Amino acid sequence: MYITQGLHRHLQRRSNATAIRSAQRNLTFAQLGSRVARLAAGLRKLGVQSGDRVAMLSLNSQQYIEYYLAVPWADAVLNPVNVRWSAAEIIYSLDDSQTTVLIVSDTFKELGARIAAESKTLRTLIYVGDDQAPAGMYHYETLIEGSEPIEDARRSGDALLGIFYTGGTTGFPKGVMLSHNNLAFCALSMLSTGVLGNDATYLHVMPMFHLADFATMASLFFSGGCHAVLPSFAPAQTLRCIANEQVTDINLAPTMIQMLLDARDSDPELARLDLGSIRNVIYGASPITPTQLDRAYQAFPCASFTQAYGMTELAPLASTLTSDYHCAEHQASGKMYSAGLPQICVEVRIVDGNDIEVPRGTTGEIVVKGPNVMLGYWNKPQATAEALRNGWMHTGDGGYMDEDGFIYVCDRIKDMIVSGGENVYSAEVEGAIASHFAVAQCAVIGIPCDKWGERVHAVIILKPDACASAEEIVAYCRERIAGYKLPRSVEFRDALPLSSMGKVVKTALREPFWRDHKRGIA
Amino acid sequence: MYITQGLHRHLQRRSNATAIRSAQRNLTFAQLGSRVARLAAGLRKLGVQSGDRVAMLSLNSQQYIEYYLAVPWADAVLNPVNVRWSAAEIIYSLDDSQTTVLIVSDTFKELGARIAAESKTLRTLIYVGDDQAPAGMYHYETLIEGSEPIEDARRSGDALLGIFYTGGTTGFPKGVMLSHNNLAFCALSMLSTGVLGNDATYLHVMPMFHLADFATMASLFFSGGCHAVLPSFAPAQTLRCIANEQVTDINLAPTMIQMLLDARDSDPELARLDLGSIRNVIYGASPITPTQLDRAYQAFPCASFTQAYGMTELAPLASTLTSDYHCAEHQASGKMYSAGLPQICVEVRIVDGNDIEVPRGTTGEIVVKGPNVMLGYWNKPQATAEALRNGWMHTGDGGYMDEDGFIYVCDRIKDMIVSGGENVYSAEVEGAIASHFAVAQCAVIGIPCDKWGERVHAVIILKPDACASAEEIVAYCRERIAGYKLPRSVEFRDALPLSSMGKVVKTALREPFWRDHKRGIA
Repeated sequence: MYITQGLHRHLQRRSNATAIRSAQRNLTFAQLGSRVARLAAGLRKLGVQSGDRVAMLSLNSQQYIEYYLAVPWADAVLNPVNVRWSAAEIIYSLDDSQTTVLIVSDTFKELGARIAAESKTLRTLIYVGDDQAPAGMYHYETLIEGSEPIEDARRSGDALLGIFYTGGTTGFPKGVMLSHNNLAFCALSMLSTGVLGNDATYLHVMPMFHLADFATMASLFFSGGCHAVLPSFAPAQTLRCIANEQVTDINLAPTMIQMLLDARDSDPELARLDLGSIRNVIYGASPITPTQLDRAYQAFPCASFTQAYGMTELAPLASTLTSDYHCAEHQASGKMYSAGLPQICVEVRIVDGNDIEVPRGTTGEIVVKGPNVMLGYWNKPQATAEALRNGWMHTGDGGYMDEDGFIYVCDRIKDMIVSGGENVYSAEVEGAIASHFAVAQCAVIGIPCDKWGERVHAVIILKPDACASAEEIVAYCRERIAGYKLPRSVEFRDALPLSSMGKVVKTALREPFWRDHKRGIA
Repeated sequence: MYITQGLHRHLQRRSNATAIRSAQRNLTFAQLGSRVARLAAGLRKLGVQSGDRVAMLSLNSQQYIEYYLAVPWADAVLNPVNVRWSAAEIIYSLDDSQTTVLIVSDTFKELGARIAAESKTLRTLIYVGDDQAPAGMYHYETLIEGSEPIEDARRSGDALLGIFYTGGTTGFPKGVMLSHNNLAFCALSMLSTGVLGNDATYLHVMPMFHLADFATMASLFFSGGCHAVLPSFAPAQTLRCIANEQVTDINLAPTMIQMLLDARDSDPELARLDLGSIRNVIYGASPITPTQLDRAYQAFPCASFTQAYGMTELAPLASTLTSDYHCAEHQASGKMYSAGLPQICVEVRIVDGNDIEVPRGTTGEIVVKGPNVMLGYWNKPQATAEALRNGWMHTGDGGYMDEDGFIYVCDRIKDMIVSGGENVYSAEVEGAIASHFAVAQCAVIGIPCDKWGERVHAVIILKPDACASAEEIVAYCRERIAGYKLPRSVEFRDALPLSSMGKVVKTALREPFWRDHKRGIA
């Protein structure tokens, strides 16, 4: 299969149906197809050759969807840029992938110009926006208007679709190479198991540069669903858009769900909005709490909730916890806190350091095999061989599997704290701390310790108006977890550093402690 | 993906669930997995090497399902045999594919022995049955009991899964080579679009050697549904099995649906059986009539009906007409008589003799592209190049596409009658004749004619107790179709020659007329 296949399919059968709804404009499949074929022609005219990398730096927009279709249409390779990255990180990723063309939206035009000045490989900038193109940039709309449509290159199967940089927040960025089939298998898996509806109106609030959103976008390309677009996540706007556009499917981080619920609670106008159109809520990054779920069911009375677990290297799905496990029974069984069962196209195992499968219930590394596993890391044969050793993608996540095949993600292996020879999983300690009534959020890291190598350190955000001392928290934890897992130091803060996906950036928390030390685990 | 992947998945997560229910025995996934791994070991012990072809000649059975899993598990290649074929045809297919091992059920043990005696390549026979193995044959159960399980070979993706012979009833048999991914894409397509349920109990009544059944079986392998097995189609048995096993999904030819309905009408005990468990009825080969559909809805009150159109070379799906088009509205729009829309993973076009796409509504050849298209014909590079020319599978079916992308299959290109330079589509003439109240079934063929090249000949079966003359039928048709399409001769018979899939074998009808002539179209 190939990423633009769905567009051809819906051009053939329902070209006048709406493909995209956004603040900028609505597009039918016919209009989308014409714009994509002409944008591809425009890229060709600018010298883009088969296999060249074309990057995009933008918040969510109708044009971002066009980018995802036009670049493969022109036989070029995608390279969507993380908008949260620093200029230095972006330049690294563009130069590493020898990207020659960058499409930049109005919001990022100054950053784009700066990047272009410093990048060694970038030679063409394309401006998306309502203004005139800044000096030295081509205008996206002029490019489309001035070009005649070309035929789709129709590269398919194992051909390289895009390079998706990852790891900017957790270490050295690596370009994950994904093929057309990687995305197609993931999309068909999601559609096969009803994670995504077949005639969805899907609201893009997750950042489009991220695989979590792009994989859903790809599913919609194939099923022919309608894309509703918001530039980024904002609670009130999201709630209004759901009601106005009769959105059926949405992808949210649990923190976003929390923010939507809080916004409704604090604004009666938002609380009155009808969210009954929502049928599927996909959430990732972490499990949902029973309280969140109860409130979410009230807000979205017709919704099924699915937790998705994965990573960019898996295009991106490893497992899903479907709606039938979001209930009191599986709160009691514990399955509601798992990452669910392997997707229909993948195999998951838990292995020890020698890649031998461990018994059920034993923690090890989660490894994955399947047609969704990346082609490799761009220009990093050694990192690729290491990640894909013995034919399995080594996720770097610690976890275990129960008797029924449910996967429980304990921790990033590299977030594991080795203290006095004992492995401490930060997630377990965080779970104990987070259950304290006064705690809003927390993160546990290992910091240098002359005696034990590492010791357990907790960073805690208290709920507004709540108070608790470090001693109280440690005493509370002592009743719940083993002594060697207890925090040896506690620090209270107002906020935690978060990634664009709402994950705590532990490298940033660890950095000041480790500046003059060397950790055993990379 | 690979065909045994689903078995591993369900062994991991629900090994004690029921995988197969049959008259012989019920098997859990654990039991099935153990038998498959030991049968694979047994095949290895008999000298089966990687890539060797292993054939099976049997009615439907639990062992047939094991065969489909154990052969790829042993890294060998499937070659299921059409049980309706003559000994000569079977020997041709075994020798053409250099098959060395044949598994034969009790029903066919004499035929198996005869084939083994005459085949040039067959060297090993395995007997499936309750008796002792005949002289010179290994016993299937002994092979399983006497072997320790081996590891799955896990060949996947584009690797050859099996050779599926086709065309025995329409000409020279050709071995269609299908890969693991061919079947996987077709299975995921069926599951994605709800053609097959995700937790199905599926009743195998279609012959298992045929792709129509095996593709559904493959979907069940992935989704983990339960297989209920009948040796072959028999109306009363089928109805009882549906009620007893609470069957949810079934695959039937329209003629079989008709026979089930007739059996209920003629036997009050059968009429009382509760068929409410049936949720999905897939039917192929030809459209359903409104009368059949009305009666079918009464018999299966909770069923969705899906028509599937395809061929072995497409593993086997090209398009489906889903349940939403089985209604009065689409009886009126005509879409109920179409073959529906292309499957999610395939592209369909209608082209002329130069492979140029024709306008909507114009009849041409139906061509298909997608990850389900066969690897090629075994040992027939020229036939492969011809069938797959310009990258599209040429189905040999004539048809057109309407403005909404629905496909209408008019005729096999080779069943088209060329009379006086005009193309006559036999299906159109058959439609006109079949609408006459006295006609039960009919088939229209071209026969030699000195003046016009070919002329239209109709073979008709009248309904019991009905009567009509040839003149009446022709006069009736004259009001419905153009003069040059009218039958020039009419023949009444008691039965038509049918293939194992319930299709009329037109080659057999044509043969006596053409024995001493040469047709323009192969």
